[in-house]
Amino acid sequence: MKYPTTPIPGGVCAPKGFTASGVHCGIRKNKQKLDLCLIKSEVRAASAAVYTQNIVQGAPIAVTKANLADGYAQALICNSGNANTCNADGVEIAQAMCALVEQHAGIPVADVIIASTGVIGQPLPIAPIAEGMPALVSGLSGEISGNDNAAAAIMTTDLREKIRAFSFDIGGVECRIGGIAKGSGMINPNMATMLAFITTDVAITPEMLQLAISRDTEISFNMVCVDGDTSTNDMMSIMANGMAGNKLIDSEGDDFNAFCQALGMVTNYLAREIARDGEGATKLITCSVHGIPAVDARKIAKSVVSSSLVKSAMFGADANWGRILCAMGYSGVTFDPSKVSVKFSAASSPDDICEVTVCENGASVDFDEDLAKKVLTHESNEIAIIIKIGEGSGHATAWGCDLTYDYVKINGDYRT
Amino acid sequence: MKYPTTPIPGGVCAPKGFTASGVHCGIRKNKQKLDLCLIKSEVRAASAAVYTQNIVQGAPIAVTKANLADGYAQALICNSGNANTCNADGVEIAQAMCALVEQHAGIPVADVIIASTGVIGQPLPIAPIAEGMPALVSGLSGEISGNDNAAAAIMTTDLREKIRAFSFDIGGVECRIGGIAKGSGMINPNMATMLAFITTDVAITPEMLQLAISRDTEISFNMVCVDGDTSTNDMMSIMANGMAGNKLIDSEGDDFNAFCQALGMVTNYLAREIARDGEGATKLITCSVHGIPAVDARKIAKSVVSSSLVKSAMFGADANWGRILCAMGYSGVTFDPSKVSVKFSAASSPDDICEVTVCENGASVDFDEDLAKKVLTHESNEIAIIIKIGEGSGHATAWGCDLTYDYVKINGDYRT
Repeated sequence: MKYPTTPIPGGVCAPKGFTASGVHCGIRKNKQKLDLCLIKSEVRAASAAVYTQNIVQGAPIAVTKANLADGYAQALICNSGNANTCNADGVEIAQAMCALVEQHAGIPVADVIIASTGVIGQPLPIAPIAEGMPALVSGLSGEISGNDNAAAAIMTTDLREKIRAFSFDIGGVECRIGGIAKGSGMINPNMATMLAFITTDVAITPEMLQLAISRDTEISFNMVCVDGDTSTNDMMSIMANGMAGNKLIDSEGDDFNAFCQALGMVTNYLAREIARDGEGATKLITCSVHGIPAVDARKIAKSVVSSSLVKSAMFGADANWGRILCAMGYSGVTFDPSKVSVKFSAASSPDDICEVTVCENGASVDFDEDLAKKVLTHESNEIAIIIKIGEGSGHATAWGCDLTYDYVKINGDYRT
Repeated sequence: MKYPTTPIPGGVCAPKGFTASGVHCGIRKNKQKLDLCLIKSEVRAASAAVYTQNIVQGAPIAVTKANLADGYAQALICNSGNANTCNADGVEIAQAMCALVEQHAGIPVADVIIASTGVIGQPLPIAPIAEGMPALVSGLSGEISGNDNAAAAIMTTDLREKIRAFSFDIGGVECRIGGIAKGSGMINPNMATMLAFITTDVAITPEMLQLAISRDTEISFNMVCVDGDTSTNDMMSIMANGMAGNKLIDSEGDDFNAFCQALGMVTNYLAREIARDGEGATKLITCSVHGIPAVDARKIAKSVVSSSLVKSAMFGADANWGRILCAMGYSGVTFDPSKVSVKFSAASSPDDICEVTVCENGASVDFDEDLAKKVLTHESNEIAIIIKIGEGSGHATAWGCDLTYDYVKINGDYRT
């Protein structure tokens, strides 16, 4: 960590000038489940987003792209329970949601970011959203409760809210960045059924903001895989309202780097938490690949955490490393299999690491199966697969989870 | 079916001059499980093969490539229980297996095709194979039992033998083609943990034989997906010994086409059976895509049958067609989502078809959920997903299976 950074509470409400809210409006049948979220900045904010690469895209994506064309936004609305995708009237409904934000919260339609997550191909009724707006707006709060309600309202099959914020310093001025995310199934690199909403009070131009998140996404959210399905609705958005009062970041340099580091600390945390909370998952699997150029290392790491056979073996605590070599081999990267070593590692703390090398020079080593079992059933429920391929300095990390009975159960009848 | 073709019994022993055998030699602990297979031609046969595209390849693949460089072979040996992959001495062991065939069956080492399937990264002992050779060779038989033992000996987690043969006519001469296959997990297009061994008594040059299987694989074995994992050991091989006495096929034309059709009938059957017998599968899922060029239709069909979310929905009999649109959207093919229609279909017989259209013009239609449930729980355990994208004549079909608790169970602890 090159620039000092401090974890703080509050998620998207941690930065100055942001409030958030979450209510149950009725898109979901379960009244205990919040299903509508609003995040608002006190002032208009430089804003940017990255989107799913699926060519079937939700209507909210199209509307957000249009609204962010000028690089500014001031509010974000998101519902769960319905993706508003593959609906004939999808764009009209998404625009109507933005109009409701203007009507009830006074933010112009063109400054609203919109997202939806849930079932694809079911018309999204506007009535419950309209009915929920007064409570949603009156619930806006800059306290922790405001953030927590917003974080809860975007969850679908997620079991846990995903929230993170940091304070950091830019040119002697204290700044803050915070985020919430959802995503549990239909998760695959390239922005997949994943939503992440970041706020910051840093002063930065829309162009530099877009550059920062585009670079960051490649090594954060795009390195997560739960099931290989790239969703139609993924989006990561950021609003930077400048209220910290730092000197405007309008070019690369130390200030930009300090911002990017803080951004990365939020996104890396959220990405890992999405993998950890993968549908049915019992374990977080991290795969780090060392010794080859980062672009290749990313492909290999992703291929390993995406393999159903690797994921099943991790569930069963089976040190079947051949499946890892196999997944590496179909990653699309050319490498010399005889140079590969593979190690499993788990840790209770940085000075209590439990690890076992299972493959060296591309072949089996005579490892202790009991030790391997100990690593793979480690109480931390976090297993690192550490791969070394060559002597280069490039490396990458991907995050995934094990494949369990519960993944099948959850997805066997999601709509009911 | 342009050329008349008749199903016949006998698998790889159906063509003239082929015998086969299968024994338990001890690579597998379970003595009930055959683990060593031999197929032999009375005379040297034009031979060809296609191989996995995984860059980590089993030692048997390297040895077979070398032995088939001249386009001829006369015997095939295959063990199950150990893939002989990622082993420092893998090539030596594979060569030693070929030497055992020469020693015991009198076929020169350079005319032996070799394959192995099972766990990756565990040294393959040669001793049990050497001990099993006398019984393996003395068991060679041209009867159905010979074929069935061979088919059983190549199985790993397969529940069923996969066997098919046809007789057909080339220039007034009756010819035969037959095959066996294995494959249940680690199955993904591009030849994945799948072995298929075909024999035929057709007279054909090695060049035309290679052309026939290379074209055929694109629309047969490469269109199967069980779990998206492309294995290190996949191989499809064919031996054509010419004993039917037809005029040698040395160019394209009617005779070649008749052969290709018969070949396709064997490979299509085996490919479908591999999907049906996918690890833990309860249903065969076929996805056919119509209206766009075949090369694109293939990518889309494969993407749909490969989606964990689609596969889970099929297991749960959930008509969640949005996941199908989603999988189409990340297939890498550009198409207009608003032109897509999706239908589920199942049939007890060609005149007893049960079907339901769930999506038209890329959006939901008001379909009967009870009818959808009826289709998706159909007694045939075979569900067709029929997708229409445009008005073109191109089309393709891919085969997969549902994702079940048992897939996870089987793969959670495969090595024990």
